[in-house]
Amino acid sequence: MNIITMVSSTFFILSLIFSSSYALMQDFCVADYKAPTSPAGYSCKNPSDVKVDDFVFSGLGVPSNSSNINKVGIKAAFVAQYPGLNGLGLALARGDFEVGGVVPLHTHFASEAILVAEGKVIAGFIASDNKAYVKTLKKGDVMVLPRGLLHFQVNAGDTRALVFATFSSDDPGVQYLENALFQNDFHTDLIAKTTLLDTAEIKKLKALLGGTN
Amino acid sequence: MNIITMVSSTFFILSLIFSSSYALMQDFCVADYKAPTSPAGYSCKNPSDVKVDDFVFSGLGVPSNSSNINKVGIKAAFVAQYPGLNGLGLALARGDFEVGGVVPLHTHFASEAILVAEGKVIAGFIASDNKAYVKTLKKGDVMVLPRGLLHFQVNAGDTRALVFATFSSDDPGVQYLENALFQNDFHTDLIAKTTLLDTAEIKKLKALLGGTN
Amino acid sequence: MNIITMVSSTFFILSLIFSSSYALMQDFCVADYKAPTSPAGYSCKNPSDVKVDDFVFSGLGVPSNSSNINKVGIKAAFVAQYPGLNGLGLALARGDFEVGGVVPLHTHFASEAILVAEGKVIAGFIASDNKAYVKTLKKGDVMVLPRGLLHFQVNAGDTRALVFATFSSDDPGVQYLENALFQNDFHTDLIAKTTLLDTAEIKKLKALLGGTN
Amino acid sequence: MNIITMVSSTFFILSLIFSSSYALMQDFCVADYKAPTSPAGYSCKNPSDVKVDDFVFSGLGVPSNSSNINKVGIKAAFVAQYPGLNGLGLALARGDFEVGGVVPLHTHFASEAILVAEGKVIAGFIASDNKAYVKTLKKGDVMVLPRGLLHFQVNAGDTRALVFATFSSDDPGVQYLENALFQNDFHTDLIAKTTLLDTAEIKKLKALLGGTN
Amino acid sequence: MNIITMVSSTFFILSLIFSSSYALMQDFCVADYKAPTSPAGYSCKNPSDVKVDDFVFSGLGVPSNSSNINKVGIKAAFVAQYPGLNGLGLALARGDFEVGGVVPLHTHFASEAILVAEGKVIAGFIASDNKAYVKTLKKGDVMVLPRGLLHFQVNAGDTRALVFATFSSDDPGVQYLENALFQNDFHTDLIAKTTLLDTAEIKKLKALLGGTN
Amino acid sequence: MNIITMVSSTFFILSLIFSSSYALMQDFCVADYKAPTSPAGYSCKNPSDVKVDDFVFSGLGVPSNSSNINKVGIKAAFVAQYPGLNGLGLALARGDFEVGGVVPLHTHFASEAILVAEGKVIAGFIASDNKAYVKTLKKGDVMVLPRGLLHFQVNAGDTRALVFATFSSDDPGVQYLENALFQNDFHTDLIAKTTLLDTAEIKKLKALLGGTN
Repeated sequence: MNIITMVSSTFFILSLIFSSSYALMQDFCVADYKAPTSPAGYSCKNPSDVKVDDFVFSGLGVPSNSSNINKVGIKAAFVAQYPGLNGLGLALARGDFEVGGVVPLHTHFASEAILVAEGKVIAGFIASDNKAYVKTLKKGDVMVLPRGLLHFQVNAGDTRALVFATFSSDDPGVQYLENALFQNDFHTDLIAKTTLLDTAEIKKLKALLGGTN
Repeated sequence: MNIITMVSSTFFILSLIFSSSYALMQDFCVADYKAPTSPAGYSCKNPSDVKVDDFVFSGLGVPSNSSNINKVGIKAAFVAQYPGLNGLGLALARGDFEVGGVVPLHTHFASEAILVAEGKVIAGFIASDNKAYVKTLKKGDVMVLPRGLLHFQVNAGDTRALVFATFSSDDPGVQYLENALFQNDFHTDLIAKTTLLDTAEIKKLKALLGGTN
Repeated sequence: MNIITMVSSTFFILSLIFSSSYALMQDFCVADYKAPTSPAGYSCKNPSDVKVDDFVFSGLGVPSNSSNINKVGIKAAFVAQYPGLNGLGLALARGDFEVGGVVPLHTHFASEAILVAEGKVIAGFIASDNKAYVKTLKKGDVMVLPRGLLHFQVNAGDTRALVFATFSSDDPGVQYLENALFQNDFHTDLIAKTTLLDTAEIKKLKALLGGTN
Repeated sequence: MNIITMVSSTFFILSLIFSSSYALMQDFCVADYKAPTSPAGYSCKNPSDVKVDDFVFSGLGVPSNSSNINKVGIKAAFVAQYPGLNGLGLALARGDFEVGGVVPLHTHFASEAILVAEGKVIAGFIASDNKAYVKTLKKGDVMVLPRGLLHFQVNAGDTRALVFATFSSDDPGVQYLENALFQNDFHTDLIAKTTLLDTAEIKKLKALLGGTN
Repeated sequence: MNIITMVSSTFFILSLIFSSSYALMQDFCVADYKAPTSPAGYSCKNPSDVKVDDFVFSGLGVPSNSSNINKVGIKAAFVAQYPGLNGLGLALARGDFEVGGVVPLHTHFASEAILVAEGKVIAGFIASDNKAYVKTLKKGDVMVLPRGLLHFQVNAGDTRALVFATFSSDDPGVQYLENALFQNDFHTDLIAKTTLLDTAEIKKLKALLGGTN
Repeated sequence: MNIITMVSSTFFILSLIFSSSYALMQDFCVADYKAPTSPAGYSCKNPSDVKVDDFVFSGLGVPSNSSNINKVGIKAAFVAQYPGLNGLGLALARGDFEVGGVVPLHTHFASEAILVAEGKVIAGFIASDNKAYVKTLKKGDVMVLPRGLLHFQVNAGDTRALVFATFSSDDPGVQYLENALFQNDFHTDLIAKTTLLDTAEIKKLKALLGGTN
């Protein structure tokens, strides 16, 4: 038995001792979309089925369709689209703004930071003391939008704008104000009472966005 | 094609872009009591099966039966009884005290706040430096009981009392001292050694509460 | 030296061993409003200055003034008002509804549960898929409102209503929609672009609520 | 300018780029016992004042004095004694048991694992369904004691025993039952009502442990 | 008294009731670099001193100096550079790669996602079972790098590359392997013993990177 | 009906009221290795199948095989080996050092504390500012190793050494540097570029440890 063999068998022992089963679970937990979910996220794929592509997402490389009322295309890379994020506490998105494009007022319980990659954008949030923090951002600027507060972005230039967003949760839970109010069957009377908006205004926007009641 | 149709089809695009799949999981995770549990709680019901009644609990509206040795009825609205709480980090309970009624010394790893809704209650907790914080609470008073510390409530008036409690966990994990010591097969000798209580006292209370050994 | 003395000196040794300094900090951390704050909350009062009254809050025992546009009085028992809550992960509030009273649409990053103590209340939240979960609650009913989603309450009866609320954070960070939009200098043009509301409607509500711009 | 100088200046650029200020805070936060505390723990020492000895604790190497009523010496290495633990989520302790020595029933909101280093120990905990989980542990055995539940240890052999304990918090918040009940001014009547213990028993143990009232 | 005055005074009451002090703390906690730090991060600036620019960071808009041994410029927007991030659980960075540029093997306890904004990059991480997950990323691709695992990036093209990174913590705690091993006084003997590297290799790299001992 | 019967039936009522279903889940969540895993850990065994032995681990009582290249035997009591730890936030391990034995440089996202039970050990970690914190520990000394930083242990005496380690997670996620670099198919060119190590050195260590490519 020569030294190489000895080292080699040492290696196998070493391997057994050091690498056995510690790696099972908490390194990562790639989402298995077919198994139960829990408050902590999706169930984990069997580690032996995990591939490098589970950690790679290519959908943010192309503009999203912005042919809509807000002239903005939004592409999310949240855990529901990107299994490798599961449990890792972050997510991304891309926003393509036509001239005049708008990401309307919305909230999510995760914090967000936006990076202007192209163009010029007015972004802002409203704090819970109702103070508005608004800033015109140029290419390369970052703005952080604290969790849970209403915020928005508006293309402030005369060219298309591109924004990348990142979130402090793998499933940030986005809620758009105009959709929450006017794109469902939330009753006009209740909306009027709980927002002070006029009934006519509510009905007009429900008609525009597809809401009923 | 008129403007209405155009807006309407815009709406469908908008709907697709903004509402697709973000809502899947983290808005809420209503407990599915038949699926596996994890350290994060119960598995989530399929979102399409969730109904508003999963978020509503009606059991705290009526007094609990207080025909017991402590003259107190306790009704819990914890995640095991109330599926909508799963993963949301809070729970509630109601305590109905007869005259002389007592919520005996107990602990839980969640913090608790009690609100006296009717009557007068002496409440208190023991800090880990053994200092007792005790206060007589009247209707409308709130007292917070920090997590992990022994605490109690005693009806201090000559009428029934009603207390609502709220917890900083959906499954607070309550442990009552008298039940933990005297209502099981925890051996009398071990209890005596680990509490300094007399064997006779232990045996008497085991007899009263149904303990053995 | 007799047995009493011996036990007594044993006691002091015991006391030193068991109770020395473990109690310093994490039992509780009563807010010191004059010292620095951190992402974890307020600094802690010196434990030797803590009194039982730091854990007791009496302000929820009386109705709040409801002489306002929403005909609702809200009294918060959050960490800013109630020092004993600091770091304990829960808070409370009370809402007094006149007939027709409304807690307008609002969000907070903490989850909330409401308990109807008197009267009848319509409560609801909008999920991030825009589905409205709405329910008429009677006395004794509880409804949980998941974190980060728009929600509201409306007095549904012809008598005053009383609601107690509890939150899964000691500082839930409440944001009311009508105040965030119409009670500050958030520019009318930006509001119009980011909500689809008409300018006239915005200006009318700004006039009503005291907003400018 | 020779290659060494070039590399050397490259080094300084590299150093600036990679090592500048990221290390400020979250690597560690050694406790500064003189600065404010928060719900997250102690304030951090200035990183430039941190020494390797802040991370080293030598007090667990010697037996603690066990001349007390429980015949046990307990030495804690919690954050209050060991500044390097601050914010790192673990703590340790050592228990020296004489023959017949007992760590009496106690709770803490952190989980604990005990390792028997010498001798034989009966350990156990009571679950919140009142089931007692009790086991005799020999040298080398580990037992985990879930957070928030009453637990104990008793020397089960005829030699001294040594136990090392570890906790899932840097400040586990220990509360001993016998001390919480009988070593303070918690009123005898309240103890009787909230534990079902006889007044005579309470008074006897208060006398033994130094309690009043 | 006319209607305007009435509404106006109603407004002040409303303002008092709804906006009083809830906004104090948890909306955001902009870092006050001069006050104590804690395991939860920096102390908060007085809310009245917070300006919108605290939430905006402009340093990622320009390439970083890449005149160093790794031909890479890295610009961090972590909480130490960007006060608005404090406590919000995310951070960003920008990496400018010359042809042949490399972000060397490093770890951090936060998870990271990288987005290739220009060029082509080989990125990868090593799991704790020692499996290497390596992928060539093109413009627009994202790769997530689970917390705590060694990972790297290498410019894989013949043009400059630009990568934006985002992290699941406001202070990710980066540790570069080559700097940790060879740019300090960590003793050569200890490095050799704990890495199996040859002493000559260690000394060569210490000379290159400025290490001693 | 005599008093005994009465008390006895009172007991059953009491039992129903107090012990019903609160204990279901959060007391503990013993790992069910056959059910799905999630980012929060393993699924829970049915509580009725849980036995005291799930909480006890006996494998740390005997030395591990140290016949390997590092002359060290390591035995983990992580959640993958010890089901009772699941979700409880701590784990343990034992290291047996021959003379000259080494626990090579490694990281994990959990913090660790080591206790020297026998012998003399040099331990240390490298902070993210590249400062090395190194100390020779004698029997009974504890050293804490902050999460996410490279650290090591070397037997510093001329006898065997024994170290117990504890972690702030039930699955600490260990990554050994020499295995991560040299015991897999991580390509030699990439290693060279991302570590500055010479190709020859890399190939030599790959040969020693079983790596390829």
